[in-house]
Amino acid sequence: MKKDFDLLALGEALLRLSPPGNERIERGDVFEKRIGGAELNVVSGVSQLGLRTGLISKLPDNLLGAFAKNRIRFNGVSDDYLVYDKDKDARLGLYCYESAAYPRKPRVIYDRKGSSMTKISLSDFPDTMFSSTRCFQTTGITLALCENCREVAMEMIHRFKEGGALIAFDVNFRGNLWTGQQARETIERILPYVDIFFCSEDTARLTFDKKGTAKEIMKSFTEEYPISIIASTQRIVHTPKRHTFGSVIYDAKSGIYYEEEPYHDIEVVDRIGSGDAYIAGVLYGLLSSGDCQCALEYGNAVSAVKNTIPGDLPSVALDEIERIIAEHKAGGKASEMDR
Amino acid sequence: MKKDFDLLALGEALLRLSPPGNERIERGDVFEKRIGGAELNVVSGVSQLGLRTGLISKLPDNLLGAFAKNRIRFNGVSDDYLVYDKDKDARLGLYCYESAAYPRKPRVIYDRKGSSMTKISLSDFPDTMFSSTRCFQTTGITLALCENCREVAMEMIHRFKEGGALIAFDVNFRGNLWTGQQARETIERILPYVDIFFCSEDTARLTFDKKGTAKEIMKSFTEEYPISIIASTQRIVHTPKRHTFGSVIYDAKSGIYYEEEPYHDIEVVDRIGSGDAYIAGVLYGLLSSGDCQCALEYGNAVSAVKNTIPGDLPSVALDEIERIIAEHKAGGKASEMDR
Amino acid sequence: MKKDFDLLALGEALLRLSPPGNERIERGDVFEKRIGGAELNVVSGVSQLGLRTGLISKLPDNLLGAFAKNRIRFNGVSDDYLVYDKDKDARLGLYCYESAAYPRKPRVIYDRKGSSMTKISLSDFPDTMFSSTRCFQTTGITLALCENCREVAMEMIHRFKEGGALIAFDVNFRGNLWTGQQARETIERILPYVDIFFCSEDTARLTFDKKGTAKEIMKSFTEEYPISIIASTQRIVHTPKRHTFGSVIYDAKSGIYYEEEPYHDIEVVDRIGSGDAYIAGVLYGLLSSGDCQCALEYGNAVSAVKNTIPGDLPSVALDEIERIIAEHKAGGKASEMDR
Amino acid sequence: MKKDFDLLALGEALLRLSPPGNERIERGDVFEKRIGGAELNVVSGVSQLGLRTGLISKLPDNLLGAFAKNRIRFNGVSDDYLVYDKDKDARLGLYCYESAAYPRKPRVIYDRKGSSMTKISLSDFPDTMFSSTRCFQTTGITLALCENCREVAMEMIHRFKEGGALIAFDVNFRGNLWTGQQARETIERILPYVDIFFCSEDTARLTFDKKGTAKEIMKSFTEEYPISIIASTQRIVHTPKRHTFGSVIYDAKSGIYYEEEPYHDIEVVDRIGSGDAYIAGVLYGLLSSGDCQCALEYGNAVSAVKNTIPGDLPSVALDEIERIIAEHKAGGKASEMDR
Amino acid sequence: MKKDFDLLALGEALLRLSPPGNERIERGDVFEKRIGGAELNVVSGVSQLGLRTGLISKLPDNLLGAFAKNRIRFNGVSDDYLVYDKDKDARLGLYCYESAAYPRKPRVIYDRKGSSMTKISLSDFPDTMFSSTRCFQTTGITLALCENCREVAMEMIHRFKEGGALIAFDVNFRGNLWTGQQARETIERILPYVDIFFCSEDTARLTFDKKGTAKEIMKSFTEEYPISIIASTQRIVHTPKRHTFGSVIYDAKSGIYYEEEPYHDIEVVDRIGSGDAYIAGVLYGLLSSGDCQCALEYGNAVSAVKNTIPGDLPSVALDEIERIIAEHKAGGKASEMDR
Amino acid sequence: MKKDFDLLALGEALLRLSPPGNERIERGDVFEKRIGGAELNVVSGVSQLGLRTGLISKLPDNLLGAFAKNRIRFNGVSDDYLVYDKDKDARLGLYCYESAAYPRKPRVIYDRKGSSMTKISLSDFPDTMFSSTRCFQTTGITLALCENCREVAMEMIHRFKEGGALIAFDVNFRGNLWTGQQARETIERILPYVDIFFCSEDTARLTFDKKGTAKEIMKSFTEEYPISIIASTQRIVHTPKRHTFGSVIYDAKSGIYYEEEPYHDIEVVDRIGSGDAYIAGVLYGLLSSGDCQCALEYGNAVSAVKNTIPGDLPSVALDEIERIIAEHKAGGKASEMDR
Repeated sequence: MKKDFDLLALGEALLRLSPPGNERIERGDVFEKRIGGAELNVVSGVSQLGLRTGLISKLPDNLLGAFAKNRIRFNGVSDDYLVYDKDKDARLGLYCYESAAYPRKPRVIYDRKGSSMTKISLSDFPDTMFSSTRCFQTTGITLALCENCREVAMEMIHRFKEGGALIAFDVNFRGNLWTGQQARETIERILPYVDIFFCSEDTARLTFDKKGTAKEIMKSFTEEYPISIIASTQRIVHTPKRHTFGSVIYDAKSGIYYEEEPYHDIEVVDRIGSGDAYIAGVLYGLLSSGDCQCALEYGNAVSAVKNTIPGDLPSVALDEIERIIAEHKAGGKASEMDR
Repeated sequence: MKKDFDLLALGEALLRLSPPGNERIERGDVFEKRIGGAELNVVSGVSQLGLRTGLISKLPDNLLGAFAKNRIRFNGVSDDYLVYDKDKDARLGLYCYESAAYPRKPRVIYDRKGSSMTKISLSDFPDTMFSSTRCFQTTGITLALCENCREVAMEMIHRFKEGGALIAFDVNFRGNLWTGQQARETIERILPYVDIFFCSEDTARLTFDKKGTAKEIMKSFTEEYPISIIASTQRIVHTPKRHTFGSVIYDAKSGIYYEEEPYHDIEVVDRIGSGDAYIAGVLYGLLSSGDCQCALEYGNAVSAVKNTIPGDLPSVALDEIERIIAEHKAGGKASEMDR
Repeated sequence: MKKDFDLLALGEALLRLSPPGNERIERGDVFEKRIGGAELNVVSGVSQLGLRTGLISKLPDNLLGAFAKNRIRFNGVSDDYLVYDKDKDARLGLYCYESAAYPRKPRVIYDRKGSSMTKISLSDFPDTMFSSTRCFQTTGITLALCENCREVAMEMIHRFKEGGALIAFDVNFRGNLWTGQQARETIERILPYVDIFFCSEDTARLTFDKKGTAKEIMKSFTEEYPISIIASTQRIVHTPKRHTFGSVIYDAKSGIYYEEEPYHDIEVVDRIGSGDAYIAGVLYGLLSSGDCQCALEYGNAVSAVKNTIPGDLPSVALDEIERIIAEHKAGGKASEMDR
Repeated sequence: MKKDFDLLALGEALLRLSPPGNERIERGDVFEKRIGGAELNVVSGVSQLGLRTGLISKLPDNLLGAFAKNRIRFNGVSDDYLVYDKDKDARLGLYCYESAAYPRKPRVIYDRKGSSMTKISLSDFPDTMFSSTRCFQTTGITLALCENCREVAMEMIHRFKEGGALIAFDVNFRGNLWTGQQARETIERILPYVDIFFCSEDTARLTFDKKGTAKEIMKSFTEEYPISIIASTQRIVHTPKRHTFGSVIYDAKSGIYYEEEPYHDIEVVDRIGSGDAYIAGVLYGLLSSGDCQCALEYGNAVSAVKNTIPGDLPSVALDEIERIIAEHKAGGKASEMDR
Repeated sequence: MKKDFDLLALGEALLRLSPPGNERIERGDVFEKRIGGAELNVVSGVSQLGLRTGLISKLPDNLLGAFAKNRIRFNGVSDDYLVYDKDKDARLGLYCYESAAYPRKPRVIYDRKGSSMTKISLSDFPDTMFSSTRCFQTTGITLALCENCREVAMEMIHRFKEGGALIAFDVNFRGNLWTGQQARETIERILPYVDIFFCSEDTARLTFDKKGTAKEIMKSFTEEYPISIIASTQRIVHTPKRHTFGSVIYDAKSGIYYEEEPYHDIEVVDRIGSGDAYIAGVLYGLLSSGDCQCALEYGNAVSAVKNTIPGDLPSVALDEIERIIAEHKAGGKASEMDR
Repeated sequence: MKKDFDLLALGEALLRLSPPGNERIERGDVFEKRIGGAELNVVSGVSQLGLRTGLISKLPDNLLGAFAKNRIRFNGVSDDYLVYDKDKDARLGLYCYESAAYPRKPRVIYDRKGSSMTKISLSDFPDTMFSSTRCFQTTGITLALCENCREVAMEMIHRFKEGGALIAFDVNFRGNLWTGQQARETIERILPYVDIFFCSEDTARLTFDKKGTAKEIMKSFTEEYPISIIASTQRIVHTPKRHTFGSVIYDAKSGIYYEEEPYHDIEVVDRIGSGDAYIAGVLYGLLSSGDCQCALEYGNAVSAVKNTIPGDLPSVALDEIERIIAEHKAGGKASEMDR
């Protein structure tokens, strides 16, 4: 049966304010005005690659909420499940991000407390939503926002699962939102429902207290929980402007680990959202081909490319990603553009 | 005895985000990044005209707080009495402002709830502060922010009065912060301490339930309370880009009303802060010359000029204002620039 | 029976390049990069006011086509019926527009020949499209683009009419695309199918050779053709930065002319698209309330506001428009913003 | 005998720094970077209208001098007679200009002392230059720069006169460069050589101590000196954004005064250089048609249009100017753009 | 006999639109607005180094054509042989270029079909043009534009050769304009007239089916055709932001190969036009000194520097290039700037 | 006894004009507008790290002087000892700076002759100034500006020394201001008063004719003069965008050389002012802790970070610098940002 959506995600959309270029937050006359958010970044990437996606979120019913909605649509994501907060104090969460150059480091400050997203309710959405998608995704950030978000997210996972959707979950641990202990307890309640699990090696060790090699850790999650696929990324930050990025995917059913050569020395323009772009690539691969190697290659390429694009949101096209993958597999030797 | 400051004001500094030119908040790629706030606007104007001023305020101890502090200093205002909020959730209040052209109207949305300013405390400041200035100013906005701000403001008024300062107060009624009834009750507790009172005719009628002509209303305040000087502005909004601005000052002691021809058909660039600029001009006039007619002329001119300057904050110089006053008195006939 | 769309329109989306501010096309370092087009402007306005709309168009399958698609979505318009031209020479039509100040006049140059839109074909679209909307709109510009567009448009008018849609048509005569004689012959073939007809008095006289008063002309169209509603706008260009705008609507069934006081001395920022914005307002009014007076008021207000917004595309919200209408009806006296 | 140039002018090119929009010089992060100068403005306008012109000037042999040269060429003016100052302290004069809105006035500060132009020498140029042009122009600004400039300008006037060129001279009195007395004495030494003389009524009265009506004054110059044509402009500054501009030309031979209705309520964007643009229009008219009425109309139109263009330099095209003249003569009623 | 020009080139000027920084074509609010074109890039570089050059081209007689002309003059190139297309559909060809960072690649789309350049005719130019220059240059792009351009270019080569000019030709193969087979057949008709030939090793192998070492290939061209000098560049694209560039020149008469150490790890800002900048450097060297080693060094340095400059057009000065060459020969050790 | 200031410096504030990004001075439409100056850069850094500083300087009493004053305050520096030049020809010195990418080199041109700073006088300042600070700093640039500056600086050194301040001096040799011989003679008159001396190895060899190893040279200064601490920086310019920076400090009393691993491969955004930032870090370290190792680490880190920040002026915070130092000492391995 064909569903309306390939992917729906639950998450907050934030206003992002960044000084242009290498300027600092405490100086200068302008902010770049963007929208971002972990789950929004994921669905945007999947839409740009060619599938149908939507964001489930609550926005303030004001001008900044309208800006967020417009940008969400601009990125190819459906606004069918955006709901609006008409409270007098309705607010869009925001953050300021400043990029960096070695030895300076990127700086970020958040101001998202009490945002409209924290007031989201199951009753905001029709029951039909839960059977309208092939896959549902959310992250640890949504769980960490507040108690209400946590409960709504949990209930949605149950309802989407019942509705026949695959459940994809990214730990995305943020120390400024909750403790590792809180994260672990909450996520362990979710893992029994998760089909596709994203967790970095570091987080597995620090938050879930896992031991052994990275691959052993990945496998152990699939042994403890009915997870089908687990993906783990590895980022090496040489400098703020130069990263190396790769990943491993483990398919529990076949017991196969999928890998490829990492992208070395990525010329980083804006690293925010590149982890989400990885998830976009992997989910696109899984939902379009079902092939784990293919998913891994999309994931690595979309993430690597995202690092070169300003803002949280990816801006990718399928043909471009496939050319980059082909060139990467051919040895990564950079050729000139076509003209 | 010479005091360190001519004017100290208590008030919040806000981050102001505005789309450039005639662009709308829900579109576009950039925000102009400014700092504003009623009392800050006042002290900035007074500093630029040549007196020594400072702002009493609480800022978040983060990058946006640092930006606010830098801009406050840029405008010639002392940061001696800025204190910093080190809470994890410390935040700078913000607002988005969009200018307009007829028949469109300016739009503004606020997101200032729970800002660091609302946590200000008397204990943040040394006792010496209260005897360090010739004049202390605050507005109804500060009173309206929250219960705590209200109490701190009241206590500061008492303490500054004891310290020998003149007390200047601007009603500045904002319907999105409190009701007229709340405003009236609160302000009536303050009026016994106020020396210089700013209240528009509309507010006097609607909030204080005053009757009679504008001049009768002004006089009546000075009869009910020991107010020395009361100033009342009159703005006619022809279109968002064309205003007329004038005012009346009443000196209770002499019983004289001071007036002059309004500034007609001001070419408005940004009307925000022009009321505060009026207060800056009046206070500069009173504190530098003590002459009410002079104060009125400075007030009208600084306000009229502020309307032509982007942002909340005035940007004026004494010689420029004096030339504008002279030309205005000579009939307002525009002459060319000198070169 | 509920339909998927309230309004579908057939038309070309163009890249618009404009120098910023008052700069000239033959100088300067940047172009503002926008998307516009008569019918797109109409559906964008109707979507922003709250109905569901889509654009029927053909875009090049390249990066500029992707930009157009993203911006169309940004404005709330569905991309369900956008099709893509994969030819090697596929191109997005473009134009350069430069605003002006008296005595300078706006300047515009077009480069739209052979654009992907001119290759549009009925076979690009599913049959279901023709029964999916309550109203279908197009303009004389689409008819004038090329022989193929003319034939596709005519056939679509027939098919949408059969599918139960109201047909709205705007003459929008452009002397640089065809002659008055060509326009008249073509449009007279369309008028038997048109329900809602937009034609200015000047065009009626010059192109259709109508005589009599403006109202007599409007009525005569409804006598010759089965037109239900005809709307005619009147714009007075005082200077490039100051216009007066009003309109008349004639309802053939009741024989009533609907009018209101024009918007005088609009502070024009960008007049392009304000005629389309008028149509958006009128169609919104007719489709949401069916009331001609209401449609007229929406039309005038949306058009007047559009003049204050940069770019072709409107940026309006229903509550804002309703406040402007209320204030206009109350005498147009400008009040201050609320805060 | 055909000459290489229609017009050569002697004058300084200055770097102009302006804050964007309504921003102030003492704030903000950017300056617009332009080149201007009275005589350069004149030759640029004449070139844009279609004649061949060049600037005689001395620029520093550095990067700012190269910028000036590039911009001069951009505007269609020959760089054949630009010479370069290789001194270590060679400098380009500069000025900062800030535009205004009522009641604010434009502000300007100059920093041009000791610029490379002040070191210009007759020996920098070949003798052939003096017979290469139909007309030579300079202004009182060049005379006022320094003693050396004064002497070089005088000698050039003699040499160009001998070479068969018409001599055009604009008083362009600047009180910040010299006194009225100095100006008068110097210019009276030049007037015996001047064919086309530009002098405003105010300057005639204040500097040359002329009495009588404006027309009597104009005529009196032609009686005292062998001046063929004298032009006098009248600018009314309603506000910094609204001017009225007209002029009178007197032809000594025929004794006829040429006039037309002024351009009323020009929507001023940047008034700098509009006087020079007038001269450009008049000289274009005289050099292309020899007709004084035509020259007057070009002068008024080019000046009026210049007021709507940012920067000192005009940006005009002959067809645009002729359409504006035609519309102005038809009653000035603004019609819409053609499309 | 002294000629008016050192170099004339035949080629198209294109409007180039680029998103700023790392932004993408399908997003964002502005385009950088530039002019470029292979032959224009060459003559601009040669002019900036100090020789007299002009472009032979046909531009639309509209505002974009005027912009192109202004920019061509800005870069020091004569507009004496620019002719204008007054057709209603006259258009300036354009392209969009987006820069990149690894692993993203630059993207480019062209929209140049039917541009005014394709209508160029020999009869547009005076016969004197063909004897007015020491050297004439064009490229394979001009040949590939259309049949007409091909014929005009061929005839111009014959006429300039007769007029005593050296003929310089750059293959500049573009797969989006023609096939290798078409290119080969056309260029082989030209080679009998070519004195200075630019062809990369790759193109020689792929298009001309050459075998052997790079040097053998170069020599073989001079054996088959009366070519005096052949130059071949080698670019290694490490990443979009890091290239290595070097070249070899072979002088047929002496049989000597000229080489030097390549410029390693160039910090690439904009690689477009760097091949043309190489030709500019080589032609400057040959035309100013006649020395091949010198020409090679200028070529390599001008190309390397062009990579660091935004836009197609070089921006170089002779003294800067000579300092860079000196430093490169001294071992490439970067020293600090002088101050 | 507590003093009002920790650091006062004597030096010129210059207007800095830079083209944005990689653009060149001789092209483009905008300049970034900044303020800089060696001593100002030093006091700004020290203020930002938390001490109280002021600049002793003379600014023109005009709009550019006001801009300089505002920016000085913005950076946390006191304007108590800024004095104003009211002369008609008062001017702010300026320079243009253009950044670069390999093989292009940064370019700079100065236009500072006769600036208001050159008219500074001891009588401009109250006697109390000389006892108000713990440390006084100036550089060779101030000495080189003119004879008057040299004499004022010398006298101030004597007076501050008498007032109990430490004297810090940076040679900062500029070949465009004076010869090595002049520098040596002047500085040798100052060294008897200097407590903290900054001199690079190159300058020591070239200007002071020193022999031996870098450390021997440092020690020799302390043997010839009563210098307590001497610091010497080592910068390796790999390319304009990649530098390595380290330093050595020698403490004469203990005879210890302090060193640490240099910062390798700094990603340079703007190298101007990084030497001054080093001094800011060292003086902050010495004045806050008195510990030479600590001073060295602050100096290296502040300088390294300054290279990543646009403009002359540093923008640093103590906590950021301390995190960078900690990470550098831990092996320089870049970790991700915290969030």
